[in-house]
Amino acid sequence: MLKRIRVIIPVNTPIWNQAVLQDLDSFKSPETSLEVVNLKKGIPSVETHFDEAWVIPFTLEEALKAEEEGCHGALIYCTADPALLACKEALRIPVVGIGEAAFFLAAYLGKRFAILSPGPSLPFDVGPEVDNIKVYGLEKQCVGLKPLEIPVLDLERDREAVLEKLIQAGKEMVKRGADVLVLGCGVLLGLEKRLSAVLQVPVIVPGRVALKLCESLIELGLAQSKRAFPLPGFNKEVTL
Amino acid sequence: MLKRIRVIIPVNTPIWNQAVLQDLDSFKSPETSLEVVNLKKGIPSVETHFDEAWVIPFTLEEALKAEEEGCHGALIYCTADPALLACKEALRIPVVGIGEAAFFLAAYLGKRFAILSPGPSLPFDVGPEVDNIKVYGLEKQCVGLKPLEIPVLDLERDREAVLEKLIQAGKEMVKRGADVLVLGCGVLLGLEKRLSAVLQVPVIVPGRVALKLCESLIELGLAQSKRAFPLPGFNKEVTL
Amino acid sequence: MLKRIRVIIPVNTPIWNQAVLQDLDSFKSPETSLEVVNLKKGIPSVETHFDEAWVIPFTLEEALKAEEEGCHGALIYCTADPALLACKEALRIPVVGIGEAAFFLAAYLGKRFAILSPGPSLPFDVGPEVDNIKVYGLEKQCVGLKPLEIPVLDLERDREAVLEKLIQAGKEMVKRGADVLVLGCGVLLGLEKRLSAVLQVPVIVPGRVALKLCESLIELGLAQSKRAFPLPGFNKEVTL
Amino acid sequence: MLKRIRVIIPVNTPIWNQAVLQDLDSFKSPETSLEVVNLKKGIPSVETHFDEAWVIPFTLEEALKAEEEGCHGALIYCTADPALLACKEALRIPVVGIGEAAFFLAAYLGKRFAILSPGPSLPFDVGPEVDNIKVYGLEKQCVGLKPLEIPVLDLERDREAVLEKLIQAGKEMVKRGADVLVLGCGVLLGLEKRLSAVLQVPVIVPGRVALKLCESLIELGLAQSKRAFPLPGFNKEVTL
Amino acid sequence: MLKRIRVIIPVNTPIWNQAVLQDLDSFKSPETSLEVVNLKKGIPSVETHFDEAWVIPFTLEEALKAEEEGCHGALIYCTADPALLACKEALRIPVVGIGEAAFFLAAYLGKRFAILSPGPSLPFDVGPEVDNIKVYGLEKQCVGLKPLEIPVLDLERDREAVLEKLIQAGKEMVKRGADVLVLGCGVLLGLEKRLSAVLQVPVIVPGRVALKLCESLIELGLAQSKRAFPLPGFNKEVTL
Amino acid sequence: MLKRIRVIIPVNTPIWNQAVLQDLDSFKSPETSLEVVNLKKGIPSVETHFDEAWVIPFTLEEALKAEEEGCHGALIYCTADPALLACKEALRIPVVGIGEAAFFLAAYLGKRFAILSPGPSLPFDVGPEVDNIKVYGLEKQCVGLKPLEIPVLDLERDREAVLEKLIQAGKEMVKRGADVLVLGCGVLLGLEKRLSAVLQVPVIVPGRVALKLCESLIELGLAQSKRAFPLPGFNKEVTL
Repeated sequence: MLKRIRVIIPVNTPIWNQAVLQDLDSFKSPETSLEVVNLKKGIPSVETHFDEAWVIPFTLEEALKAEEEGCHGALIYCTADPALLACKEALRIPVVGIGEAAFFLAAYLGKRFAILSPGPSLPFDVGPEVDNIKVYGLEKQCVGLKPLEIPVLDLERDREAVLEKLIQAGKEMVKRGADVLVLGCGVLLGLEKRLSAVLQVPVIVPGRVALKLCESLIELGLAQSKRAFPLPGFNKEVTL
Repeated sequence: MLKRIRVIIPVNTPIWNQAVLQDLDSFKSPETSLEVVNLKKGIPSVETHFDEAWVIPFTLEEALKAEEEGCHGALIYCTADPALLACKEALRIPVVGIGEAAFFLAAYLGKRFAILSPGPSLPFDVGPEVDNIKVYGLEKQCVGLKPLEIPVLDLERDREAVLEKLIQAGKEMVKRGADVLVLGCGVLLGLEKRLSAVLQVPVIVPGRVALKLCESLIELGLAQSKRAFPLPGFNKEVTL
Repeated sequence: MLKRIRVIIPVNTPIWNQAVLQDLDSFKSPETSLEVVNLKKGIPSVETHFDEAWVIPFTLEEALKAEEEGCHGALIYCTADPALLACKEALRIPVVGIGEAAFFLAAYLGKRFAILSPGPSLPFDVGPEVDNIKVYGLEKQCVGLKPLEIPVLDLERDREAVLEKLIQAGKEMVKRGADVLVLGCGVLLGLEKRLSAVLQVPVIVPGRVALKLCESLIELGLAQSKRAFPLPGFNKEVTL
Repeated sequence: MLKRIRVIIPVNTPIWNQAVLQDLDSFKSPETSLEVVNLKKGIPSVETHFDEAWVIPFTLEEALKAEEEGCHGALIYCTADPALLACKEALRIPVVGIGEAAFFLAAYLGKRFAILSPGPSLPFDVGPEVDNIKVYGLEKQCVGLKPLEIPVLDLERDREAVLEKLIQAGKEMVKRGADVLVLGCGVLLGLEKRLSAVLQVPVIVPGRVALKLCESLIELGLAQSKRAFPLPGFNKEVTL
Repeated sequence: MLKRIRVIIPVNTPIWNQAVLQDLDSFKSPETSLEVVNLKKGIPSVETHFDEAWVIPFTLEEALKAEEEGCHGALIYCTADPALLACKEALRIPVVGIGEAAFFLAAYLGKRFAILSPGPSLPFDVGPEVDNIKVYGLEKQCVGLKPLEIPVLDLERDREAVLEKLIQAGKEMVKRGADVLVLGCGVLLGLEKRLSAVLQVPVIVPGRVALKLCESLIELGLAQSKRAFPLPGFNKEVTL
Repeated sequence: MLKRIRVIIPVNTPIWNQAVLQDLDSFKSPETSLEVVNLKKGIPSVETHFDEAWVIPFTLEEALKAEEEGCHGALIYCTADPALLACKEALRIPVVGIGEAAFFLAAYLGKRFAILSPGPSLPFDVGPEVDNIKVYGLEKQCVGLKPLEIPVLDLERDREAVLEKLIQAGKEMVKRGADVLVLGCGVLLGLEKRLSAVLQVPVIVPGRVALKLCESLIELGLAQSKRAFPLPGFNKEVTL
């Protein structure tokens, strides 16, 4: 069963496209075809509610285009899940945020999960993922979000240092009760196995989980409930 | 104490401005000066997550401008509270969404509140207000959101019919346990006294409550916690 | 990637095996091989905590055997998820209960799901699924379990009558707020499309969802957290 | 709009009256007139459920008198909110407890608040405020109550020592996740700015918040829902 | 093991004493001696927060006297549990409210309980029991409090009419999901068997349950945790 | 009133019988007769979901036999409460798990309880008791389960060492907020007084609490709600 999936990386730059596509390609079904796109306007990375605000209508635009162009599903490739609820209203094909997919699987695999997030020096447990988890109804299962204090745009510079920070942050979260860890960024790739081996807990790479979930939904003929996310009337004129 | 408050009606049309200003003028402190603005782009009314998506960056733009121009506080005048969390991050002056202000006061005045919302024929208990209430932590106190099935843009046509629908919907919500009602739209004005008299429960007009809350915060020298809503690094280039 | 999955139908009869295998075969990945087994002792169908008690150690026995014999994953094919937590402790390969898989997906696809269960004339909202949902942390998202009052062993007799009962029960649950429905039995197959078309909500067939989840976990190299479900010391002598 | 507000300091001594009146006078609206009263019987300070028990009927007596004498609103000036629910039943004018007002505003301004309370050496997180927060439905948003181990009657002796204790206790609470602090006593005045400057979180002075809330309710024509707090039949004879 | 238990009926009238003593006598252990007392001041029946306020200090007075006079335990014989938390602080002997004892047992015997309360025509689900259940942490297990609209002082007039009202109210609560019923009044005695036979659910008589719990605590050497309910400093002068 | 209570120690060995019987004998009512039994098959001690799985049908068998043989109540003497929900469905006489009885009393006596459990070196807060507490609805009141890292079968070897471990673990739990401690094992007897004296919190011995609860239920004519735990149809053939 052919599955054409649009991967929307909701930033105004293509710099992550190749790495993301390469990572997803190793995990996709042979019958899945992936198409990676970016936004025409916005901001180059999303780490806060503030960042997220700039990309929301342009993300929705890309999601609308994906359905119009015949895709069977769409991924919003950012753990902050920007514009996700709007996309679920507007589209009939399954739209999967990589944040929501990762958080639901984390809640499923253990009793309490934590998120390890890049991001500048924020306090513990703030930001869009933390608020979204309340909307998704998984608040009780989430120990918290721990920032690594590395800007997303610097993640590639010194990968051993990033791994070391992941291990330290992960240990702290396991001590607080976490038994599953979620990497809170779509481009934090390739360190998950070593982190999992050191801490002995599952480590979830959100984009991969979202891909498998989207493929599964397409194969099962399922999508977001239109009763929970009813189609909006499209008769208002939008200016953008 | 002079309080200069910017009232952002987050739509791309000025059609509501006069009615809103007139209503707030009757409730403002003598020392408050109100300035009503709209968005340069977006959509003419916000009833769904889909609608909300189009106005978010432009609402944030107006909020940033309000602080730059020396306002002491800002209201986001829509019960869906678009861009609210982003504004709370970006600004140091108090930013009050009329939705959040109404929901907290409703939770305070009784045990369980309900929202009566205009909006086209949606199912029970969907839409941005319902999801926001989870983020605000008031889910247990909210009986649900009941749509009146009137498009916002038609609210002024037949006010007796609107009142009748409000009474019917309100009765149903009281029967489900509500003891306070919130009018789920910023421009549903002037019917609250008759509704409250018929149903014998407090009826909350969100814009007025938000105004009084914003004035109080300014007078008390308080605003959103910057630990909960940390200032974003502004060094990323935004394209809009 | 070859995925050998053992499907444990936890009853002491093979009468469901062919129908289950046939249904799963249409949804499995081309690289998945399915092996259906039953229990050496127990009871012919599981509808209550009482029924479930008789099959628990024999289900665990089959799960242990699956791992010993080199399977990559195991399904416990009963929405009551008998012996599931014990299996998650005992095994390193992913063990997926069809109940838990269905409930997590239902919580993901909408805001509130309901379960339509066969079963004799029980009161509303009792039985093993209802208690398990508390353990899985999805209580807030579950509207309830509605019994159809049909013994599992009679499901095949008059399928139009079963569909009619599903539609009536589903309508009632949608009115209570459900926006996703879960078929609360592994052998209630082939009616889901018509039910979904009538009620306009997603209808989840648990076995299929569990299959796709188990395949995804194997492909992603994930399984239940051994910190949440630690390996028991096997040094106690069991008599069975 | 004239607002006559009775401030009931629910103790059998006038020793706090002047300080409270002076503090509230700086924050009241020009159109508000404040009248401070005490109880005819009771106890000189309220720090525990035990203390609170002695003042309850006498606080209710004063609240009844306030309404009879034509006040537009009443404050119960103690963070334990003694007799508050009884007053809300008995009165039609708004009755605001300074505890409840502070806790709702704290929940509004951040994600998680903590209370810094004087009081003798109690364990963490006990006492009337802690139990009231469950009744108000704000349990999830409250990190806890931290006692300073200073009897209320000693608060004025060494204010620098009190500030030092507030900073230490506040730091501990921020580390536990608090992003807003509430001063858990009506007479802990004048230290809030320095505390807020050191810890960089909003610090709430309950009496001031209650005053602004009460003024707002009067101006908006709102009060506690009589459906949540129905008028008791007054036909039973009380002996006091 | 001798168990001397003081039964405090927290009203200013002895009219219920004989009926209560007679009822408890049939259920007490042979080694228990019961002593029934009333308050020196207050109100003749407790149905609201307002009523409760008048009896609180006088109830505490009686509880203090019970411990001073060597009792091994005390019951507060009113389902509103007046002064209970204050008594738990002040005393080292077990103090059991008949409300709390009934609610905990109801939560234990089923999944969801309801309270059938006398009381004049109140709305559904208001009053002291409803708020106390939040403090006790049993909110999720309580379907609600249904008033019978009979003043407590009229309960003895027409017992068949009372039974009829109990059956109607009980049926409604069972339909809402209750599987255990609590009689929300200490003097609603002698109808429980017929009610239980008609509705086929356990019916809890609070006073009896509290008696057995108090006896059990005394025999097991247990009482309220003094860490949860620390002894207040008694050094403040009380005027009453 | 004669109360014949069957004590089912759900293991396949009689080694604990004498100690348990001796302990319960000191607390039983003079009118209670106790009968201790074991299982015909299973495992010698229950510390995990895995262990529990082996004993479930054989525990249910003994419970069925207890009712058939005319007992008035039954205890399942293991804090994991194996087969408890199945027994509550199958029987009309009260069946009390020593775990559930202890957890409900712990929730009643304080605000937050913790469990001190023997068991090999498990992570914090895993195992059957932890999951059961969610089913019982007491999750909010439970701070967690702390393993002592002593196999149950070694508890008798060095009792001073066990006491020392209990004190250390108890201190940690009190620091986390526990104000009541539950001994998480039915054969951890005789150390509770010293532990309680050191930590100044109530220490609950589950078997004794369950005995008193079972006696109370029998005397009050109460048992598990058959609406919550409906009688299963017994017409299916079981093979064991």
